[in-house]
Formats: sequence, C-alpha cells, structure tokens
Amino acid sequence: MTRKAVVLLSGGLDSATTLAIARESGYACQCLSVDYGQRHRAELEAAGRVAKALGAEVHRVIRVDLAAFGGSALTDPAIPVPRAPSSGIPVTYVPARNTVLLALALAWAEVLGAQDIFFGANAVDYSGYPDCRPEFMRAFERLANLATKAAVEGRPLVLHTPIIDLTKAEIIRRGTALGVDYAITVSCYQATATGLACGSCDACRLRHGGFEAAGVPDPTRYVT
Amino acid sequence: MTRKAVVLLSGGLDSATTLAIARESGYACQCLSVDYGQRHRAELEAAGRVAKALGAEVHRVIRVDLAAFGGSALTDPAIPVPRAPSSGIPVTYVPARNTVLLALALAWAEVLGAQDIFFGANAVDYSGYPDCRPEFMRAFERLANLATKAAVEGRPLVLHTPIIDLTKAEIIRRGTALGVDYAITVSCYQATATGLACGSCDACRLRHGGFEAAGVPDPTRYVT
Repeated sequence: MTRKAVVLLSGGLDSATTLAIARESGYACQCLSVDYGQRHRAELEAAGRVAKALGAEVHRVIRVDLAAFGGSALTDPAIPVPRAPSSGIPVTYVPARNTVLLALALAWAEVLGAQDIFFGANAVDYSGYPDCRPEFMRAFERLANLATKAAVEGRPLVLHTPIIDLTKAEIIRRGTALGVDYAITVSCYQATATGLACGSCDACRLRHGGFEAAGVPDPTRYVT
Repeated sequence: MTRKAVVLLSGGLDSATTLAIARESGYACQCLSVDYGQRHRAELEAAGRVAKALGAEVHRVIRVDLAAFGGSALTDPAIPVPRAPSSGIPVTYVPARNTVLLALALAWAEVLGAQDIFFGANAVDYSGYPDCRPEFMRAFERLANLATKAAVEGRPLVLHTPIIDLTKAEIIRRGTALGVDYAITVSCYQATATGLACGSCDACRLRHGGFEAAGVPDPTRYVT
C-alpha cells in the first residue's frame, strides 16, 4: 500500500516544489492548506490548482483565525507590506505561524494514520524567520513524537523539509525537473484577487531573483 | 508593570484552578479558549463565566475546526463518549489537541509581548493522554524558544503547568483555598447546552471522585 503523507501547501513556489518531491518519493499526498486570515488570499486558490496539477490525493483547507491576534503585515491590514528589504526579522513574520501550521498537520496526520509530514520551509532565503530554521524543525519532530497516540504506540512521525537548505534557484531547478508549472503558483504577499503579483515585496523579489539565477524564464503574472 | 500571561481556559475544573494560581502569582491574565469543534459546547460558556469570576483582564475565543479532521469522540458525533472506564488511550483523546492549543497560545503570547503561558494539563488523572505528560510540556517549551521572534531577541517563553503533578483532590483543595467557585465550571464531555453534567463519562467520574477525596461537597449540576 502507498504510504500517506500530509503535505502543507500554501500555493507558493516552495510548497509546490515540496509536493512534487513528496510525490516523486512515492507518497500518496494529502495536502493541507491553512486559511489563517492571510491577506494574500489568492494563495489559497493557487494551492487548489497546485494540488490538482501535481496529483494530490486530497486537498483540504482548514480555517484558523490568526488574524484575530494581529501582529503581522500578512494578517493585519493596518501594517503595510514593505516594498524594500529591511534588516532583522521582517514585519511579514506571522507570530508562531509555522508552529500552528505544523500542529494542524500533525493532528490530521494522526487521524489519517500518516507518519510523514512534508513542509516546504526554507532557511536560506528567509533566514529572518526564526521558525524556518532546521533546529526548529528538529524540535517540532521531537515534540510530535511525544505528543501523539501514534508515537506512543510505536508509529513515530518524520518531518520532511526537503528544500530547507536549497537556494531559490536550486528549488526552481529541482521543481522544473519534476514538472512543476510555476505559472499556477502565487508567492506574492499582496497578490491581487486574481493572483497577479506586485513584483516589489520580499517574496516577489526573492522569487524573481531565483528564476534569474536558475536561468529559467519567470512565468509569474505581474500587475502591469 | 504587571506581567501579562496567556492562560488557556477550557471552562473545566483544571484550567479554572490554573487561572486562579496564575492570578495569585501576580500575572495580568489574558485568557484564551479554543473552539475546536468540541461536542461539549457548554464548556466555552463556562470559560467566559470563569474568566470573569477570576478577574481575567481579557477573554478571547478562537475557532479552529479540528472537527474537520475527526478521529475523536469529542469532535466526531459518530464516535460515542464511553460511559465506563477503558484501558489504553481513550477515544476522547483529540489528535494533537494540546499541540494545537499551545501553538495558538504561543502565537497570542508573542503578539501581546507575554513571556508566560499557563496550561492546566494534568498527568495524574489523565495519564492516558500522551500530550499531558511533563516531557511533552518541556519539549513544547523548547520548541517555543526556537520558534519566535521574541525568543530570538532574548525574551524566552516559560510554560507553566502548575497542576500537572497534582491529584484531582489536591487540585480541588488548592482551588477552593484560592476562592474558585467550581459550580460555574463544566468538565463533562457531553454536558447539556445549559451545562448539566452526565455523571458517567471519564471526566465526570474523575471530577466527582476528586471532590469526595478532597472532602469538599461536589457543586456540579448533574442531569437528574
């Protein structure tokens, strides 16, 4: 029987590549997108397209209202998304976001009987986010293996972060080789309702630079 | 300035006692209840009463639809709540519930600038739940201190679990000494809409036994 894996899918470039890697590794992919009140809603629609295009078995969207807490440019309309690079941890950091995403993935994995979670975190380009670091991922895996009935009964969980150490260009080359159509993904922090990218936020700049460095034409649809 | 603490408040006996302890310790208590689709909805109303009675500064309810995943008698109407004790991990265990609750508390704590979370987990009476054990709590604290901007910038988080090693009778004596009115709390897994307890589920039996052992009259309102 094919092993099931829960794949966190945001609709962006990184998680689409991670899904392609999980499928290539032979997993039956159960994709989970989290509607946490992010301002870039077009991402969630992109996630649905990506799940379908890359042969996910199931795609589920779960709501959790992190916007009620505020504190981030991605969830609080009063905090603008920066249009230029900044130093330190950016205001687009969503407090404890990856902890919440992984906790939800763990809950679903346990219900499904899945022992594998794939997460497209990347520590290279987003080094400003503390919860994208490899030591955070190891600490979550350790927590997960104390948290669940499955782990207690001898079915430990493995957290896969296959692109964590790759540059954006390496991610794009890997995904391109696996047949990922990046035209259907949305990375922009303030994409329009139809998924057009602004071209100037951190996410757009990193993404565009990645295509340039990879020598792959950038298929992103930008606001003109 | 009074230090803020996030206190997870379910509306049951354990979390009410934990709130009383946090307040006694001098914290300005920011109570968080999570509506995760639990069948015992009267708990959430009880949480509001408890927060008010014990002088919480703020009480917030956040929704996350764990019921969409199913897999527990507490969230899936198709799985009945057992009326007699069982061996092993009970079907009332909600997959990864405490990981999700703590992740949400962490998110709010970071936004508030709070460095303390109080959680009324108890490892004695509920030893069947893996995510109530002290080693799980330590692993979460470790994760939290890798996860957040606050921790990276030198404001570490402390996870307080003041009743984790107490028996139910000890918890009740402690709370009674601190003025907790247990009549307004709801512990029953299948309480009626008005908060009447069934008297036969695991939670009711542990609670009633606790009052007996503590020599405190049981103020619980039962279905007659």
